[in-house]
Amino acid sequence: MAAGVQRPLRVAIAGLGTVGGGVIRLLQQNGDLLAARGGRRLVLAAVSARDRGRDRGIDVTAARWFDDAAAMAADPDVDIVVELIGGAGGAALSVVETAIEHGKPVVTANKALMARHGTALALRAEARGVSLSFEAAVAGGIPVIKTLREGLAANSFTRIYGILNGTCNYILTTMRESGRDFADVLAEAQNLGYAEADPGFDIDGVDAAHKLAILSSVAFGSAVDFDGIHVEGIRHISALDIEFAADLGYRIKLLPIAHVDGVFNAVVAEGDFAGRVLLQGRGAGAGPTASAVVADLLDIAAGRRTPTFAVPASALKKHPASPMLHHEGAYYVRLMVFDRPGVIADITAALRDEQVSLESMIQRGRAPGEAVPVVLTTHVTVEAAMRRALDRIAGLDTVLEPPRMIRIEDL
Amino acid sequence: MAAGVQRPLRVAIAGLGTVGGGVIRLLQQNGDLLAARGGRRLVLAAVSARDRGRDRGIDVTAARWFDDAAAMAADPDVDIVVELIGGAGGAALSVVETAIEHGKPVVTANKALMARHGTALALRAEARGVSLSFEAAVAGGIPVIKTLREGLAANSFTRIYGILNGTCNYILTTMRESGRDFADVLAEAQNLGYAEADPGFDIDGVDAAHKLAILSSVAFGSAVDFDGIHVEGIRHISALDIEFAADLGYRIKLLPIAHVDGVFNAVVAEGDFAGRVLLQGRGAGAGPTASAVVADLLDIAAGRRTPTFAVPASALKKHPASPMLHHEGAYYVRLMVFDRPGVIADITAALRDEQVSLESMIQRGRAPGEAVPVVLTTHVTVEAAMRRALDRIAGLDTVLEPPRMIRIEDL
Repeated sequence: MAAGVQRPLRVAIAGLGTVGGGVIRLLQQNGDLLAARGGRRLVLAAVSARDRGRDRGIDVTAARWFDDAAAMAADPDVDIVVELIGGAGGAALSVVETAIEHGKPVVTANKALMARHGTALALRAEARGVSLSFEAAVAGGIPVIKTLREGLAANSFTRIYGILNGTCNYILTTMRESGRDFADVLAEAQNLGYAEADPGFDIDGVDAAHKLAILSSVAFGSAVDFDGIHVEGIRHISALDIEFAADLGYRIKLLPIAHVDGVFNAVVAEGDFAGRVLLQGRGAGAGPTASAVVADLLDIAAGRRTPTFAVPASALKKHPASPMLHHEGAYYVRLMVFDRPGVIADITAALRDEQVSLESMIQRGRAPGEAVPVVLTTHVTVEAAMRRALDRIAGLDTVLEPPRMIRIEDL
Repeated sequence: MAAGVQRPLRVAIAGLGTVGGGVIRLLQQNGDLLAARGGRRLVLAAVSARDRGRDRGIDVTAARWFDDAAAMAADPDVDIVVELIGGAGGAALSVVETAIEHGKPVVTANKALMARHGTALALRAEARGVSLSFEAAVAGGIPVIKTLREGLAANSFTRIYGILNGTCNYILTTMRESGRDFADVLAEAQNLGYAEADPGFDIDGVDAAHKLAILSSVAFGSAVDFDGIHVEGIRHISALDIEFAADLGYRIKLLPIAHVDGVFNAVVAEGDFAGRVLLQGRGAGAGPTASAVVADLLDIAAGRRTPTFAVPASALKKHPASPMLHHEGAYYVRLMVFDRPGVIADITAALRDEQVSLESMIQRGRAPGEAVPVVLTTHVTVEAAMRRALDRIAGLDTVLEPPRMIRIEDL
């Protein structure tokens, strides 16, 4: 703790995109503070990226350049490797594996890699006695991994949920505030740089599912199981759904916490002793992500070690994922129907036949002989029953579009 | 990290009140989980309290009993000392000093002790190479100390604020929701056990000031300076103030974050890279506090060490506290005045003479020749000027009560 004079820790960074630039700026700007808090100075010793010639607006001339990131990870004059390449395999995986093999601690912001290979990498890291840190992989600047692994480590967790994808949260918030439709707001988000040109990763729920896989493992001591996660996105949400949800007193979220809007992320952890703890902050961007990466570096500098997923990786259990068909909860359903006598009776009969209990029904306006939206909410029911009822309803000739179903959570 | 077979850590607890009971229950209930996460088993080896005979509803028969807590702290068969006696000196101080002297790590929930003696104790602990942990001293179950010291350690902090006293927050929330007056709601809070029989510590702001002294030190690397903190409570807040504040779109809080109500605590940290991070959860109670105490125990079990106030205590700086007279901000002022011509002109002249710029004025209802409330809000001004203006206003013979002043923060 009272640090003697120790030589600086030599940091190597693989990947010089937005986050890499943020980390380098942070190391330069807050260097003295980091040395005081970590007990050792952190120096940028080496960097690697695809294109050496590109102007990134940061000065890396003092660091050694490597065209081959894995060679950098193996270099004896590198103490810690920071992986910021991205992607669930390929170069990122090889850099991380090489660093661990050479007995070097690794810091990564790569959620796809951790969701896909987290358990295997944690086992290797523990076998080599090095740490594998990934605070930046979930919820950007919010130190949620540390909070679950250490701050709330005395608790048995009962539930973890959160709003983990900033792009979806931005789109849904803008839809609610403006009344505009999904495609329109998505296009705008792409122009503003809040959504990728290929937005599927975000809007189809893959990114949030990666993060959830990691959080579940940390909180519940289960091996990371990306394939066990039910993945669902927001593509099918219409302006009409947003409006009906508002009428019903709800907000539509990819993972719901109703009062967090815009670019913020929020995570709620419920522990048996601490109760419900909410963490909220910026979930993305160079600054917040760099903040998380360098916090991990400081833990290493200070010699603070925590098992990757809170308990030794060898102790992680194989919890079979609970299939979504077993989910119990209330549901929002939107239908487009012909406005003619008997339609509602047919729909309610289908629900009754599957033992789904109706809580409310809204039909806005009347337009005899034309298509009108009808919105139902149900009491708590099992998803399998709900889906069977919706299959029946979809088969009615007065029902014009596939029913839209959204799960309701009262948090 | 990959823990070999290590002998259990022998924990001694001084003070067996609500929190002590919670810690013992947690150690019993989550014992296996704690061993997995901490890498070593935590066993309750010894306890000490004032009255051995009292029934506390917890089983401590397996632990050794000490009438003298300091003797327990010195005992060679104790590895870690948990101080839950409370109070800024006396028995609590002596237990902590004795433990440190004997080279034992200390965990305390005692905010008064840390606010008064934190720097001196941290220096001693560092000299002896033991840790002094106090997560439970601020904001109960919210791991705010760890978040500031480690999770956000890469940041230079620009501001820390929070709602840190549950009693005040409960009273102000109930006043707002019910329209009832301070004394009435306080009496009810005392009956419900949310406020002490002697409530001064909470409602006069001392408890919140203790916590703020600790947080400032952790965030800004300054020596703990309780006496430099401006202490102000909520005794003078009336139902009228709550009502006027609502009309103006504000909520009155001891330290304001406007959307946190009731028994929850909230802390906001603004870092240069992470941006604004909000932590919210239960700020008091046996469970949340025990959660924080045992998180500290786990850090010790796992060998994770962090300097008490984020940097070595010897490096803490003496930042002179900024006197409240230098505060710059907007103000809410409530006056009780005789409703007669010229009153408002006299008041605005006093403000003008001290260069305080008026933003709004509300006079609800008219009652010529009688006392009526008048509420002003100002633009940003220096507190010294505001107080001089209020002295002038208090001297007007049409002003019937001392003016009430509340600082406005737009967070």
